Amino acid sequence: ANVSSKTNSDWVTLNVGGKYFTSSKSTLIKKEPCSMLARMFAENHGSYLFTPSDIDANKAYLIDRSPTYFEPILNYLRSGQLIYDSNVNPEGILEEARFFGIESVIPILEQIVQVHKTPRDELPLT
Amino acid sequence: ANVSSKTNSDWVTLNVGGKYFTSSKSTLIKKEPCSMLARMFAENHGSYLFTPSDIDANKAYLIDRSPTYFEPILNYLRSGQLIYDSNVNPEGILEEARFFGIESVIPILEQIVQVHKTPRDELPLT
Amino acid sequence: ANVSSKTNSDWVTLNVGGKYFTSSKSTLIKKEPCSMLARMFAENHGSYLFTPSDIDANKAYLIDRSPTYFEPILNYLRSGQLIYDSNVNPEGILEEARFFGIESVIPILEQIVQVHKTPRDELPLT
Amino acid sequence: ANVSSKTNSDWVTLNVGGKYFTSSKSTLIKKEPCSMLARMFAENHGSYLFTPSDIDANKAYLIDRSPTYFEPILNYLRSGQLIYDSNVNPEGILEEARFFGIESVIPILEQIVQVHKTPRDELPLT
Amino acid sequence: ANVSSKTNSDWVTLNVGGKYFTSSKSTLIKKEPCSMLARMFAENHGSYLFTPSDIDANKAYLIDRSPTYFEPILNYLRSGQLIYDSNVNPEGILEEARFFGIESVIPILEQIVQVHKTPRDELPLT
Repeated sequence: ANVSSKTNSDWVTLNVGGKYFTSSKSTLIKKEPCSMLARMFAENHGSYLFTPSDIDANKAYLIDRSPTYFEPILNYLRSGQLIYDSNVNPEGILEEARFFGIESVIPILEQIVQVHKTPRDELPLT
Repeated sequence: ANVSSKTNSDWVTLNVGGKYFTSSKSTLIKKEPCSMLARMFAENHGSYLFTPSDIDANKAYLIDRSPTYFEPILNYLRSGQLIYDSNVNPEGILEEARFFGIESVIPILEQIVQVHKTPRDELPLT
Repeated sequence: ANVSSKTNSDWVTLNVGGKYFTSSKSTLIKKEPCSMLARMFAENHGSYLFTPSDIDANKAYLIDRSPTYFEPILNYLRSGQLIYDSNVNPEGILEEARFFGIESVIPILEQIVQVHKTPRDELPLT
Repeated sequence: ANVSSKTNSDWVTLNVGGKYFTSSKSTLIKKEPCSMLARMFAENHGSYLFTPSDIDANKAYLIDRSPTYFEPILNYLRSGQLIYDSNVNPEGILEEARFFGIESVIPILEQIVQVHKTPRDELPLT
Repeated sequence: ANVSSKTNSDWVTLNVGGKYFTSSKSTLIKKEPCSMLARMFAENHGSYLFTPSDIDANKAYLIDRSPTYFEPILNYLRSGQLIYDSNVNPEGILEEARFFGIESVIPILEQIVQVHKTPRDELPLT
């Protein structure tokens, strides 16, 4: 009857570009088992994918990417839904989805970006 | 004459996806006594719902969800009103309301989301 | 010639819902002497209004409210002016003004909220 | 060939309303030598303008003002340009410019605020 | 098979105006090898460009600039793309691109700023 159904070592903290995110290995692995995040934390692989130099003083895994656009990616892995605030640029989320290999969300983001970008394409050239 | 009317062990800190929230057990329990949060912190149940692995180094309870959308949920439990900023996506709040089982706010959010979503449904298909 | 004109014990840190705010007792008391904040920190009263359980490990006073909407309330006490960013929902500020008893700002916020709310009242019923 | 051209004791950390800002004394002094910030950190004056009670446990100088609106003020001192995001209320920046005595930016902000405020002045009276 | 392909001493933390950013030296150097950031962290130069006074108590390199507008600059160095949220003012990013000497992104930002600024130029003079 454990609310979060985690085993003892399941929680991980990621230091993404200087901001901390806490999640569970199962969240990072289950939804997209072939993604970079899944491969980073899968049982048999985790031990050699990270060298000690990639873990900071707070035992967080260092990832050199944008924290702003990682947040909706992580929420997508948690809930299975792509949800982001109106001020967030979907091009940034798409860039991270491609980097981390979250394949199922890439076509959704590509369509949103195409529609979203149209106005800027119409800017006058100087 | 204690301003906040808390008993000694009433304050709890939640680590929601890497961000800390401080609240009182009475806030988490009173408004929605059947929700997951209420059951997590109810006197008779708290002891076995969380295993030690779900508590971080700062003694905060770990919850693997979005901090952005948890914030208006917690404010709803505090004040009884659903209030959020204009840039926040109500679909994210609805997702959390469903996850945590905050039943009284779900129909309110469902109606807001339905109205809010209409424009995106009209995006051209490519 | 002390720039901030504070006596030694005048600074206080508030932990509002998990976020820290630093201010001076004189700011919390002067502008609205009958408010809850003023009564919390007034010389003769402070000692019994807070029990030790309401102070966290960093010696901050715990307040179980929204940090987002507390910020413009605190700025109002500092500068005497109600100023908030365009994405911030004035209903949230009004809720906090009522909770903390900042009487002079309540009618200002009530009028803003009434004007601000009109569009949502016109949402189609489903 | 020091990139930032600071002398050893030039860096200061300010705790503005609970948020930390790191800058250099030369930034705080050079652009507006008569401002309150300049006078706070000028060589001959700093020693008596701050009493030990105005420095927090992290050796940051305590300032009882809004961190949100201090940020563009500090950036103005750094770069000589007034730049702020579209959601930030210029009235808040003006209030801080007046408080800190950043004279050169006050007329710029006054004109922006006047234009920006017009719509609210036209709100119906109730 | 190291996911992030960093050598042991490759990670650096920057304290930009009070906010921490974590990245790798290779990110800071590769995309714009003549920029100030690249020169700050290049092997042969790093040793004398920073004096010990420019490193804070958390071993972060102190940079006296705006954290808000540094973020899209760092993301540009990471991904090669200029992406920022709709509320962020591109004039602020341009200012940082010039300061840090990120030459390839300056003309892109200059065109965006020119189009973006037009409405303000049309403000009535008072």
